[in-house]
Formats: sequence, C-alpha cells, structure tokens
Amino acid sequence: MALEPVLIAGEWRQPVNPSGSFKAIDPTAGKPLPESYPVSSDDDVAAAFRAAEDAVVALRAIPVDAIGRFLDDYAARIEAAADALVERAALETGLPATPRLRNVELPRTTGQLRQGAAAARERSWCLATIDTKANLRSCYGPLGGPVVVFGPNNFPFAFNSVAGGDFVAAIAAGNPVIGKANTGHPGTSKLLAELALEAARGAGLPPGMVQLIYRTPPEIGYTLVSDTKVGATGFTGSKSAGLKLKAAADRAGKPIYLEMSSTNPVFVLPRALDERGPAIAKELYDSVAMGAGQFCTRPGLAVVPKGDKGAAFVAELAGLFKAGTAGTLLGPSGATAITAALKELVGSGARVLTGGRAVEGDRCAFEPTLLEVSAKAFLERPHDLQTEAFGSVNTVVVADDVAQMAAVAAALEGNLTGCVYSDTTGKDDDAYARLVPVLRGKVGRLLNDKMPTGVAVSPAMNHGGPFPATGHPGFTAVGIPASLLRFAALRCYDAVRPHRLPPELANRNPTGKMWRLVDGNWSQQDIAE
Amino acid sequence: MALEPVLIAGEWRQPVNPSGSFKAIDPTAGKPLPESYPVSSDDDVAAAFRAAEDAVVALRAIPVDAIGRFLDDYAARIEAAADALVERAALETGLPATPRLRNVELPRTTGQLRQGAAAARERSWCLATIDTKANLRSCYGPLGGPVVVFGPNNFPFAFNSVAGGDFVAAIAAGNPVIGKANTGHPGTSKLLAELALEAARGAGLPPGMVQLIYRTPPEIGYTLVSDTKVGATGFTGSKSAGLKLKAAADRAGKPIYLEMSSTNPVFVLPRALDERGPAIAKELYDSVAMGAGQFCTRPGLAVVPKGDKGAAFVAELAGLFKAGTAGTLLGPSGATAITAALKELVGSGARVLTGGRAVEGDRCAFEPTLLEVSAKAFLERPHDLQTEAFGSVNTVVVADDVAQMAAVAAALEGNLTGCVYSDTTGKDDDAYARLVPVLRGKVGRLLNDKMPTGVAVSPAMNHGGPFPATGHPGFTAVGIPASLLRFAALRCYDAVRPHRLPPELANRNPTGKMWRLVDGNWSQQDIAE
Repeated sequence: MALEPVLIAGEWRQPVNPSGSFKAIDPTAGKPLPESYPVSSDDDVAAAFRAAEDAVVALRAIPVDAIGRFLDDYAARIEAAADALVERAALETGLPATPRLRNVELPRTTGQLRQGAAAARERSWCLATIDTKANLRSCYGPLGGPVVVFGPNNFPFAFNSVAGGDFVAAIAAGNPVIGKANTGHPGTSKLLAELALEAARGAGLPPGMVQLIYRTPPEIGYTLVSDTKVGATGFTGSKSAGLKLKAAADRAGKPIYLEMSSTNPVFVLPRALDERGPAIAKELYDSVAMGAGQFCTRPGLAVVPKGDKGAAFVAELAGLFKAGTAGTLLGPSGATAITAALKELVGSGARVLTGGRAVEGDRCAFEPTLLEVSAKAFLERPHDLQTEAFGSVNTVVVADDVAQMAAVAAALEGNLTGCVYSDTTGKDDDAYARLVPVLRGKVGRLLNDKMPTGVAVSPAMNHGGPFPATGHPGFTAVGIPASLLRFAALRCYDAVRPHRLPPELANRNPTGKMWRLVDGNWSQQDIAE
Repeated sequence: MALEPVLIAGEWRQPVNPSGSFKAIDPTAGKPLPESYPVSSDDDVAAAFRAAEDAVVALRAIPVDAIGRFLDDYAARIEAAADALVERAALETGLPATPRLRNVELPRTTGQLRQGAAAARERSWCLATIDTKANLRSCYGPLGGPVVVFGPNNFPFAFNSVAGGDFVAAIAAGNPVIGKANTGHPGTSKLLAELALEAARGAGLPPGMVQLIYRTPPEIGYTLVSDTKVGATGFTGSKSAGLKLKAAADRAGKPIYLEMSSTNPVFVLPRALDERGPAIAKELYDSVAMGAGQFCTRPGLAVVPKGDKGAAFVAELAGLFKAGTAGTLLGPSGATAITAALKELVGSGARVLTGGRAVEGDRCAFEPTLLEVSAKAFLERPHDLQTEAFGSVNTVVVADDVAQMAAVAAALEGNLTGCVYSDTTGKDDDAYARLVPVLRGKVGRLLNDKMPTGVAVSPAMNHGGPFPATGHPGFTAVGIPASLLRFAALRCYDAVRPHRLPPELANRNPTGKMWRLVDGNWSQQDIAE
C-alpha cells in the first residue's frame, strides 16, 4: 500500500526505508482514516538536514523581505484553502469545525503568520544594540541551523509544526524549519505543508525552507534534536516525551524550548467567594471544559478556603461538571492518559466528586471529572497531586485559610499560569498580598479575576513559565516578536567595517521604523556619520 | 589547624563538617600560602540555600534602590581596599599588581558594579512590554532562587564569584548570590566578600544576599547547580568541569550559563598578509602573550594562506614567540594542562615550531609555544586540533587558498570570537565575502583588523557564542544590561489590577527614564490613564 509522501528538499517524495506506518484516527468514531503515513527512518532525517543546511547557506543571500512575502502569502493560501483545512482538521481531531477551527483557530494562525511577516520585515525583534563610541554593534540573527518543530495534538493549525507559533517564530527569525507533524493530524499537516511549499517557492526561498516528516522511532527523534546541524528545537507536548528530547538535546549542547505541562492553579480568595462564588464556579467550569479540557492553560487545580462558601462553591462546581457533556477528545490515547492521571491523583488522596470514567462507545471521550482534596493532604504529596490530566478535569484543593492557600502556592511546581480571584471592592487585598508574592515566582502569567485559557497573541504575552511547565523561564512561545528570540543567536560586530555590517546595524536605519538601542536610547533614527 | 571561615547567612562562620581543606599557591614560587580553606560539605551548602531562600522572600519587600546603593557602596569599598586586594590577588595569581590588577582589572570591576547599580535603578534592562488594549504587561524579574556563581581563575576581581560580571548581573536582576570561589584565589575572594557583606548590611539587604564557600567535593558541586531552590548558575571555567555541571543542572531543569572554551581563530586574508604581515604577527603575538595567554579570548588559532608571505608570517611569529618571556601562570595546574593539550595537538598532526615545555624551576610557567599544521591536516581532525591550550600557545593553520580557509571556518566549533584581517584598501573584500558568512555563525563576536583579547564592558558587547564556547548562543556574560537577562524570568500580568502591578509595569514610568515597549513603541513616557 502506498504511503503518503514526506516533504524533503522542496519535493514530496516517498520515504526512504521507512520503519513503519500509521493512520490518523477519527476520534468521533474511534476509527482509523484511510491514509497511511510513514514512520521515517534516519534516511529521511539525514536528507532533511542536508536540505536544511543548504537552505541556511542560501538564506544568507536572500533579503528578509522574501521571508515576509512568504509568510503573508502562506497566510493568504491558508485562507483560500480554509474549507479543505477545516474539514480535514475536524476529521482528524474531533474539534468543532465552527466556531473553533474556522472562526477561532484558523484566523489566529493566519494572524500569527502575518505578525511574523511584519516582524521579519520591520526587524525590531532582533534588539539591535549599538555603541558608537566603542564601535560595537550587536543584534540577534538566525541560528545557523534548522529549527525542528514538534507540534502538539491540540491545535492542528495554531501550533502546527509547519504553520503554528513555533514555525512562524523560527522562520521570521530567518531559520529553515523541519516540521515533525503531530501524529494526531498528519493530513492537516500535509495540507498545510503543501501550501507552505507553494508560498516558499513563490517567494524565492530555498527548497529546504519548510520540510515535513510525520513520525519517527524514538531514537530518531533524539537525533532530530541533537544532530550537529540542528539550530534549536521547539516542542509542545507531553512532559514524558519532552523530558526525553530535552535530555538528548542538552547532551549535545543544543537549545530546546519545551512547553510540557501545567496545572494552571486558580485561587479563589475568601471574599471573592462571598461576593460571587457561583459566577466564578461557572467561569471555572467553562474554562475547564473548553476544547474538552485539552488546552495547555486549562485550570487543573482550584484552591478555595473551606467553610460554607467553599463547600457551596464545590457543590456548585460539581453540579456543573455533572451536567456537562463530554467533549470529543483528540484521539484514543486521551482517555487512557486521563484514566492513568486520575489513578495517580486518587491514589495520592484526591476524591472523585463526579465523573471519573471514559465514555462508553467508539467515540473518544471522557466524563467531565471533578476531584477534591484537602490542602493538608495536598501538602503531603504535592508532586503527585499536580499530575496533569489532559481533559475536562479539575481538582479542588480546600484550604483551612489564606495561609494554607499560600502554602499550597509554595508547593506548586512551575506553571504557565496562575489566577487569583478576589473581591472587587478590595476586601481581599490583604489576602492577595500574602498569596501572590509566593505564587508569582511559580507561574509565567499571573491573572486577576479571569481564567487562563485565552492566550492572546500579543507582544506582552508570556506563554511560558518555570520548569517543568517549560524548559526555561526566560522565554515565551506565544507573542511576536519575543517568541522569535528562542530561535536566534546573539551576534556582535566589533570594529567591523561599515560596508560589511548587516543592514540592522548600519548607520542608516534599514526600514526607517526599526527600533534600535543606540548609545543607551531606543531610537528609530539613522545614526549620524 | 583553624580553617578560614565561610560566609553564610550574613556571618563568617566555621564550616560544618568540612570534607577537607586546601591552600592557595603562590605561582611565582610554586609554594602554598599559609591559610587553610575548607572544602565545604553539604551542611554548608544546605545552610547557604536556606539563607538564600530567606533572602529571596525578604527581597520582595525591598525597593530596587537598595540594590543600587549596595552595588555602588561595594564599588567604593573595593577602591578603598585596593592595596590589600591587589596585594592578595597578585600573591595568589601571579598577575602583575600594576598595571594589570590595580589599573585595569580593579577599575573594570568597580565599573561593572556601578553599571549594575545604574541598571538596577533605571530598570530598562527588564524589557517591560505593555499592551494597553489587551491589558497585558510583561517584564523580566528575579528568578525566585539564588544564583550560584563559579568564578574562573584568570580574573580574580572582574569575574570573581562575589564581585565580577556574573555576580553583578545576578544581583542587579534582584537575586541573591552564592559564590563558589575559584580555588586559585580564595583569599582574594574572602576579602571581597567581607566588603560585600559590609555593603549589603549598609544597604539593608538580607543576610543571605551574598554568601561564599571556597570549594566542594564534585558531587556537592552538582547539588549546588541542581537543588530545587537554585534559580540559575553562572559558570566560567574549563570545559570538562562545565559540562559535568551542565549535565547536573540540565537534568534538574535549572538554567546554567557556561563560558567554557574557545580557540578564537584569527584569519589573515592574502592581501592583508601582503600589506602588513609583520605588523599583524606582532599584534597576534602580543594578544596571545597577554596575561600569559590565560584569557578566554586569547587567539589559539591563526589561519593564513600558504606561499612566501604566509611562510614569512609564520617565521616572523616564530621569532616573536621564541624571543618572548614566559609569563607566570595562575597556578601549578596550568603547565600540566598546557602539556596535555600540546600532546593532543601534536598527536593530531600539529608541529611545534618553538617552545613546547614548562619552564624549569619552582615558578609556574610555560614557554611561549607556536605550532603549525596544514589546513588539510586540520580538516582531517578538526575536533582534536581545536583542543584549547590555556596559555601563550597558538597554532597556525596554513591553507592552500581562501576556499580552504573557509573550509577551516566551517569545521570550527562554537567560539567566543573570530577575527578577520583584510587589506585596508578593499583588495580582500571578495575573500572576506567568501569566508565571513561561514565564520559568522561559529562565533559570538566577529572582529575586523583587531585582536579579540579586549572585551569592552559595553551594552553592545557579546561575550558569548555557540556551544561549546558557552551553553547557549543567545546570551552574553559581559555587557550591562543584556547580561542580566540570564538571571531573570519573564513574568506576565494579565488583567492584574493597577495597584497590584510592579512599578515597572504601572502606567506611571517609575523612574521617568525607564525605556518600555508600549503598544509597539519604545517610550520613556507615562501611559495615559
């Protein structure tokens, strides 16, 4: 049976010596889709690296505007092909075609591509820093090797390995990308890569600019992140897979940016509970249930004070979970993983209040599940009770008082987000002042009175956080231009003759709009000769 | 016999259960100095972490101005104690008291401290980014754990674990520091820490702000970089030690910034050789010989074209090396390490032209040593022939032509610096255009027509580069404010109520001078309400 082709060196070609094949699953029916995709061997990977190396060389002579044209054109092609993309992504992921895929995720994806195009052209992202007196000039530039992107299962467009946030950041920073498709949506990835290839050709980019393989045996995955030719890796996925890739990349001295896991705690302070407990419960449930709970920022922990209001909050929440419908999961492994996580949570002292089982039948689905545990029990086994259950699952931690809520915060591992709900008239301000200094260091993004599931594509976003939420606390995976800095090297020019400087560091501002730090001041001006 | 005390939790105290002791060596005589310093056990390390954790908490309530006052006052105290510091450092390192220690390194050190003070107060370093429409605000802040600094042997002041560049960067970013003294100059480190402690007390900083231990067994070193309480580590030293610490930190998901090794290649293009070969040879020798060759940026490789001019260059250089005096090395291990490196280089095909032996007698010294190897031989064993010899040692690589010079560049590992000498009238511009695109990606700092040993403390400096020169290509160890970003976490505030924002992100510009990226434009203005 023919295998779907891989995209290597600008051509769709049959895999060389594939070590196996796989099919995507329609999670609404639990049935495999007809196409067979290859599990690539080292032959495909080596060929991709060779083409990427050629692309790195070719890119040195290609003006950045070509990258901008590529990203803009790619966005337009995605819009033109929206019907086919949405249909395929819905089939492979079970995510609703509308509004989710067509009206939310697809526009987010094209928006990211266009922001990347603007950043590539405008160049402020590279933080050009010029010391005219010492004649030293520095800025960020491409890594000198391809970026390998491992896309997650939960955003077939917006975090796709050949169209999503990491892809845009890597390309806009001037690097070729080798995409490792998420095996949940290989067909969507293939459609996107076809569009990317057309756009890259149209913009005059080298054939190895965008490449795609679908799957590899684990050891080839380690090669992907640690080969001497690699520039860096962007990975979004499970902690277990991420840590293995991290170990391989670290040993080779290769940067790897991981977004791995997060329980995204929500703290509800006492007077907020008094003021609007049921409304917060509703917000929390909606946030947990969004996308069948398969968001990196889904709140997996809620921390509330005990007492009547706390009990009422838990009861209200339990009612919502009980009445909620089980969304379709992204694939058959979802329910297995949730079951395993629940076993861990329950074995560590949490109690299931509602839900707890996979939905019977062929559809991939799991009951909305609420657990409860005392803060005292949580503090005895904080690591185990932070096991991530990637679905509509939340564990309510019931604390004796604000001091114990702060103790729970102190026991948290690194998270992407942390939310605090407080009384709108200031009655919780003392409690806030006790809790937040502890919580602040544990999370990448701190929110007030809102749930964390919305991740705006803003320059001021931080979709990142301390380990093990990510691999490094200083970088964000969402938000242009900052996300580009993951895929860039700092390059200094010391007494380099003026005509040899890159345009970003020449006396003349290359775009007239680029911000540069010149002798301590940010400026869009040319530098006087 | 009494051991020198360690500085823990604001007190000079006897080490608890030390696992041994050591003495510094006067390298001019090869004799141990009288004081005995402890090899600290886990007890000291655990106590330091506890005090650092308390300091992290206390710092949340301390205004940044206190950090500025501390760093300024510390600089002043260093100047007031210059006689004692210079005397002790000269004794322990063999470096000349003047001009090197007193007139160059000490002013550099106090300059760094004052630049750090200014950065801490002015706050632009934290790259505050504000999206008023989305109400998202981000900036860099402290790591939430101490920074462990391992200082190198070659700069007893400017890279000292309790006074140097990493120290300043960590403190200015708001973190406590646990200094691991270089064992070559424990007495200098102790004197500095005494001054730091006085200055920290005077500024009202917590007792755990600056701590000092001298040495640990290797396994305790791994604990230092991987403990759950650690924020990050800054290490400057050997590749072998650095890679072991990196492995330990990586496994724990803890950031570690390493400056490990570099051969700092110098390429002399053909017409530059025609134009001014002897002058370049003199520059190269002076750069190699500076500080007895014990600079991270000492040029260890020179790449020249073959032919009469190339041969004359090598002969000129060999004459300078032969006539040169052997500077005193930092300690007895220096000559052993150079001997081992030379064995590796010669075993890989390089030929010793002059030098090659340790100087006889008690003084720690090694003959200035020049080696030669053909580019063809270099390209057969590029890894082995990039073995770093930390002394006045250079290997000249003789290439057939510019294409082969570019091939040598392509075979380079990551370096801190790369220099290109070219004809001043432009006759080498074609050759430059062939070589430099290859070289650029291999080095952190590219220089034209100058040697790399000067590392200006400038915002535009990059004292960094691709692995294995450092552990990450995106960061610099020298240059304020950029060096602070190594010791900072990105923190986002999403819809956080105005009165709860840190001053850096409030509508009012906290200093009136802080640069912030507000809605896409860098600005020093307040944000309109």
